Amino acid sequence: MQLALDLATKGQFTTTPNPSVGCVLVKNNEIVGQGFHFKAGEPHAEVMALNHAGENAKGAVAYVTLEPCSHFGRTPPCARSLIKAGITKVIVAMQDPNPQVAGRGLSMLQASGIESAVGLLEEKAEILNKGFLKRMRTGKPFVQLKLAMSIDGKTAMASGESKWITCQAAREDVQQERAKACAILSTAQTVLADNPLLNVRWEQLPHSVQQEYQIENLRQPIRIILDRQHQINSNHRLFTIASPIWLISDTTRNMTALPEYCKHIQINITTKSYLETLMIELGKRHINHLWVEGGATLAGSLIKEKLVDELIVYIAPKLLGNQAKGLCDLPYLNKLADAPLWTLKSIEQIEDDVKLIYRYKTK
Amino acid sequence: MQLALDLATKGQFTTTPNPSVGCVLVKNNEIVGQGFHFKAGEPHAEVMALNHAGENAKGAVAYVTLEPCSHFGRTPPCARSLIKAGITKVIVAMQDPNPQVAGRGLSMLQASGIESAVGLLEEKAEILNKGFLKRMRTGKPFVQLKLAMSIDGKTAMASGESKWITCQAAREDVQQERAKACAILSTAQTVLADNPLLNVRWEQLPHSVQQEYQIENLRQPIRIILDRQHQINSNHRLFTIASPIWLISDTTRNMTALPEYCKHIQINITTKSYLETLMIELGKRHINHLWVEGGATLAGSLIKEKLVDELIVYIAPKLLGNQAKGLCDLPYLNKLADAPLWTLKSIEQIEDDVKLIYRYKTK
Repeated sequence: MQLALDLATKGQFTTTPNPSVGCVLVKNNEIVGQGFHFKAGEPHAEVMALNHAGENAKGAVAYVTLEPCSHFGRTPPCARSLIKAGITKVIVAMQDPNPQVAGRGLSMLQASGIESAVGLLEEKAEILNKGFLKRMRTGKPFVQLKLAMSIDGKTAMASGESKWITCQAAREDVQQERAKACAILSTAQTVLADNPLLNVRWEQLPHSVQQEYQIENLRQPIRIILDRQHQINSNHRLFTIASPIWLISDTTRNMTALPEYCKHIQINITTKSYLETLMIELGKRHINHLWVEGGATLAGSLIKEKLVDELIVYIAPKLLGNQAKGLCDLPYLNKLADAPLWTLKSIEQIEDDVKLIYRYKTK
Repeated sequence: MQLALDLATKGQFTTTPNPSVGCVLVKNNEIVGQGFHFKAGEPHAEVMALNHAGENAKGAVAYVTLEPCSHFGRTPPCARSLIKAGITKVIVAMQDPNPQVAGRGLSMLQASGIESAVGLLEEKAEILNKGFLKRMRTGKPFVQLKLAMSIDGKTAMASGESKWITCQAAREDVQQERAKACAILSTAQTVLADNPLLNVRWEQLPHSVQQEYQIENLRQPIRIILDRQHQINSNHRLFTIASPIWLISDTTRNMTALPEYCKHIQINITTKSYLETLMIELGKRHINHLWVEGGATLAGSLIKEKLVDELIVYIAPKLLGNQAKGLCDLPYLNKLADAPLWTLKSIEQIEDDVKLIYRYKTK
């Protein structure tokens, strides 16, 4: 199963909106087939492994990182392929919460007399597809908020200067994180202030990632910009890269001056918070995993509305002082006990910078 | 030498204002004597080890973590004791920068025909006595600034509430750090706001420290309070513990209402910065290692004046938002390149808190 998980990881930059899945077929204590899902529309992990094994699949045990699908999508159901190939037992790391599957894959196998077991290395399988799983369970994407700051929690000088707080290696790490996301969310304010590209720059990915992720397979996350006042135009650097941009506002917008890869999505103001409505819409549009890079206002609003699943914090070894720009605008808190609480998930040193990952803690 | 360093560490809470030193005597590949310095006025490490070895010292090689002293202090010079005992070779981790020694201990040995070598595990020996060494070299104490903050660099709510940002285990770690310091520096503002004890609470030291550091040996660091407006009086909780308090101001002060363990030290305003003058005075008064716990003003002033050697940063998994109180008041910086830079020395996880140690980086 660990091998199946490692195989699944090879698809982490490309499978969206599908989950990353790996499959290993074992017969007489030998691996007879292995495969992973690489891209939506291409064969699933199980089919890759069955093709790899050929005749040897008959009588083998299948280790799959996610319950095999039971429905016809762009490819036929994997459960049926496993049955047809004569697999005798299927061990899955976890059930697929996709309402189109949700146990039906396993039932299909059982109905054909194939033994099955669920839960092996489930926690690792959960982490691998946290975006897909969150969307299947809640309809909303898994949201990672990137925060790059000085020791004293400042993101920029009072003057606005922010290039660069963190070191180059930390910024390369950001490239890798962006590459895993389905989409990057930012705001018109950030675009106006910093004029960023918000893309994945393959040359800046760590060497180890480049080995696994060839430049010809490079997938650009969709760039989603909150632009209620329609301030973004084709002169911004965003438009030097011809890959999808979604501009979000609550009014209609004339898009004739903008290239075709740039769409406008109207999110109307409802009784729900605007950002929550946006997340539901992004979920409907198959965004599993959203990476957020913006300013203190967006950060504060997402946190306040409990829409952030993970904080990815980069701390640079600098002190900017209390006059510099703060990390997040939160409403006035009366009591320390009211402050949002997080669980520390990981600590990593990147040269003299520190990368901390926190997971939202439901009280 | 590693054993000698480990022995020296046993004195780290008690030797002030002396350095922590360990000594191991080896003859025919066997340890024949070992010792460490425990307390000023008590025998030095070399004498402890010689006493331990007795007759066996003759012909042995001595490993000492710091150059043996050559002068009469409260005890006779160790170099002479080593010569008298018939030691054949002395290996020291580092020279003693104390102007009363500074190579003279080694010369004394060489003059008696004893071979010597310097530099084995020097870096570790340097860390062990960073306070003593800094004072010997510069006349000023080694200054550690403690910063306890939320992820977004806030130390308290806008209301002033700050109990407690960090977890209990992190606060116990602070007790251990305080215990190593010669003195704790704070301000009248902090005393008025939080009414702290600023002492070492033995019961809160980690169990492993308690094993080495018996309660009967407990040494309270001197509590130094910047109190220019003479606001501190005996009603503050500081005075519930009868151990030295130094009140600092630039004017004379009537101390009759205060207990005898509380001194007033007048530091006059000169052309130098006030805090620098204070540090020089503290150096003269044998403060090797100063632990600072105050507010954003003191933190900012010490940083601005380049008086901080190490930042000890505790980060709690909370977000308090931009309205909460910031970490340090620094003068307005025009450019990011002007921000004080630090080198990351260590990262430690303490439950869901993170402890980062940064060393001041001279550009």
